[in-house]
Amino acid sequence: MRIAQTRLSIETAPREIKEITAEIAQWVAHQSIALGLLTVYLPHTSASLLIQENASPDVLRDLEAFLRRLVPEDAALYRHNDEAPDDMPAHIKSALTQVQLTIPVTDGRIQLGVWQGIFLWEHRASPHTRSLVLTLLGE
Amino acid sequence: MRIAQTRLSIETAPREIKEITAEIAQWVAHQSIALGLLTVYLPHTSASLLIQENASPDVLRDLEAFLRRLVPEDAALYRHNDEAPDDMPAHIKSALTQVQLTIPVTDGRIQLGVWQGIFLWEHRASPHTRSLVLTLLGE
Amino acid sequence: MRIAQTRLSIETAPREIKEITAEIAQWVAHQSIALGLLTVYLPHTSASLLIQENASPDVLRDLEAFLRRLVPEDAALYRHNDEAPDDMPAHIKSALTQVQLTIPVTDGRIQLGVWQGIFLWEHRASPHTRSLVLTLLGE
Repeated sequence: MRIAQTRLSIETAPREIKEITAEIAQWVAHQSIALGLLTVYLPHTSASLLIQENASPDVLRDLEAFLRRLVPEDAALYRHNDEAPDDMPAHIKSALTQVQLTIPVTDGRIQLGVWQGIFLWEHRASPHTRSLVLTLLGE
Repeated sequence: MRIAQTRLSIETAPREIKEITAEIAQWVAHQSIALGLLTVYLPHTSASLLIQENASPDVLRDLEAFLRRLVPEDAALYRHNDEAPDDMPAHIKSALTQVQLTIPVTDGRIQLGVWQGIFLWEHRASPHTRSLVLTLLGE
Repeated sequence: MRIAQTRLSIETAPREIKEITAEIAQWVAHQSIALGLLTVYLPHTSASLLIQENASPDVLRDLEAFLRRLVPEDAALYRHNDEAPDDMPAHIKSALTQVQLTIPVTDGRIQLGVWQGIFLWEHRASPHTRSLVLTLLGE
């Protein structure tokens, strides 16, 4: 049984749902761990992680539009208004999704479904540099 | 420290919230791992996993009705309309819940609360065959 | 590779979003595991776990207010009304957030972001005693 860990840095565009499957799969492929669990962790509070369909860009656009309607950028709704009007909605969107994912690894590869990709969802209206911590445990 | 992994196949009815605790507990009971972590992973994008109350069927009905009100099947709201009108709402419902769960194992048993069950939530309006990947790590 | 597990008991106030980072970090610090994964598990169906900003109390107030608007305590909306009017909304709020979190550990410390804290979110309108199961796997 072994454990490996790394940090990745990801550049995001405003409100982008950015696919990060390739970066993650590439690191896993180099760890010589055939069977195990990969945890992807995002140490941020205004972005989140998502496993979703990677075939149609419209699915990502609809997801972003849905969450923007659900969590309006209306300053009257929030007390926390120190930063820009997209700040508190970004925290809520992060809370409604996830900052950590654990995915099985078999034969040295993450076991995503045929249509699944891993995405980093930027909830802020400005570009950011986001960190990711990958931890792989197995044999 | 050992690791065990398997795949289960689950048949769902339309919009069903199906309890899968027994199938999972049974597999865990046969792995001779007393202390560890179980990860349940669903490799699909229009269904999800849920840990919820397993005592009252009304809780499950209310959960399904709530999410159906929150994510209406109204084609005018979505760009992604290649498939049936329940398709894009199913992706959104999956994003608002989870496709992976990690649960502690003690004395060879998953440590669910007294009222907790594990459920597979079918978000499509038609029956499906869904896969589950179970990974158990411990000693 | 080692595994350690414990149970914590947390007292909550009505609808409280209570920070539990210190209790968790303290237990991890005593396990002599430098590199690994920590899973926090909540065996309840009307409370949940949250990783969010720990700097501004307004963020927590806005999160609670948002979820209270999203999931109204209106008995006419739910079939499950055996208990108090806050009961079914508490189940829904728990389903929209999470009861399990897996967080990387490096140099013997959980790798939260600079602004992240771990919170136990009480969704009931009355105080409760909640259990937490912590499992740490690593070397």
